[in-house]
Amino acid sequence: MTYCVAMNLADGLVFVSDSRTNAGIDHIATFRKLFTFGVPGERLIVLQTAGNLATSQSVINLLKQRSADPNLVSLHSVPTLYDATALVAETIREVVARDGAPLAGNTDLTCSFLVGGQIAGSPPDLYSIYPQGNFIQATVDTPFLQLGESKYGKPILDRNLHYATSLEEALRCALVSFDSTIRSNLSVGLPLDLLVYHKDSLILPEGYRVGEDDDYYSDIRKRWASGLQELLGALPAPPTNYNV
Amino acid sequence: MTYCVAMNLADGLVFVSDSRTNAGIDHIATFRKLFTFGVPGERLIVLQTAGNLATSQSVINLLKQRSADPNLVSLHSVPTLYDATALVAETIREVVARDGAPLAGNTDLTCSFLVGGQIAGSPPDLYSIYPQGNFIQATVDTPFLQLGESKYGKPILDRNLHYATSLEEALRCALVSFDSTIRSNLSVGLPLDLLVYHKDSLILPEGYRVGEDDDYYSDIRKRWASGLQELLGALPAPPTNYNV
Repeated sequence: MTYCVAMNLADGLVFVSDSRTNAGIDHIATFRKLFTFGVPGERLIVLQTAGNLATSQSVINLLKQRSADPNLVSLHSVPTLYDATALVAETIREVVARDGAPLAGNTDLTCSFLVGGQIAGSPPDLYSIYPQGNFIQATVDTPFLQLGESKYGKPILDRNLHYATSLEEALRCALVSFDSTIRSNLSVGLPLDLLVYHKDSLILPEGYRVGEDDDYYSDIRKRWASGLQELLGALPAPPTNYNV
Repeated sequence: MTYCVAMNLADGLVFVSDSRTNAGIDHIATFRKLFTFGVPGERLIVLQTAGNLATSQSVINLLKQRSADPNLVSLHSVPTLYDATALVAETIREVVARDGAPLAGNTDLTCSFLVGGQIAGSPPDLYSIYPQGNFIQATVDTPFLQLGESKYGKPILDRNLHYATSLEEALRCALVSFDSTIRSNLSVGLPLDLLVYHKDSLILPEGYRVGEDDDYYSDIRKRWASGLQELLGALPAPPTNYNV
């Protein structure tokens, strides 16, 4: 399984992905699920993936190969993020059609993508491509999108993330959301790949990989755990009509 | 959908159920999902239900009718909670077999139950019956069991609930778990039915229904929301190597 979150906020974009893949529970590995495309000063496009690893890797490889050829329609040439998302969806369909018969049988070859970024002349934008190939767009009302094991970490985002949230606080909120998911679900695991993009900067940010020994992540995990414990302990006791 | 939690702790048992049922998203209703059986001074058995409402209601009705007949093996006569759970599972199979053909077609008639309580001479006990009819038992290592939309509210239980947690704190933890679930998932809704049983009391507790206007639940929801916001705000900013 997988857990990915992306946010389109007033100040820019935040992306966080885990890196655990599993086929059953005894074939567990680490694969990066966050990929960047772009031209400094002109465009940044970030892809996050979930679902069939063979399909998503092929999609990324084809998108990369084609981006290197200036004669092709590619992520380096499409005029909008909407068109970039449609191109990713088309490439998913192409790979699933190629790999789907006759060998694949009932294997589920589908995958999901988050596509976010900015192309010069337009504001930042963010989409989620479903396994069916259609896609939805993040909005001011719903500024974050998730892939994979999304439920464990959704309450903290529903409660605390808004369009106006600062990038730095949004990143903390995302890290807490990942901590809750990783504690409750074995199929999501470290390291995490994260990337924060400041609106209109049109640079390709370096991003960062959070590993097991990361001091900051360990620190906020501990603070969050002890803070929740204190908060729960400080709630008032139920009244007598609760019959406790 | 449904969300139910039950806990078997050092000091006794805690049960909380929501009451929303839905067939699709446009047929939403309120049905109690927490039921008590028992003989004061001798036994208490609490059932919580999820899944097909027609099946779970039939199971409860048959168990109740049979409990009233002292000549039948029933929840009022079985010697252990283990036997009570096996009897509930057997009754589920009976109803699914009765209602399953020829009219039901592909309708999923299965349901899940949590079965907890205490019978004089044995400690409190707690089981979860799967839709397949087999069942597992809560233990000191894993003292809580959930039914239905369990993921949203699981992190707070994984983090803060232990076998030694007091009944009163466990109830608060359960209410926070329900609040998180209700905020993030429309198919889980108020009122909540809750019941706290003190080990070895062998009384049939009254329980309590938490409605929309419940002052205590509103109060802890507000405190929890503002406490989380403060806690998130108080986390330190990411270091420079995070490239935020």
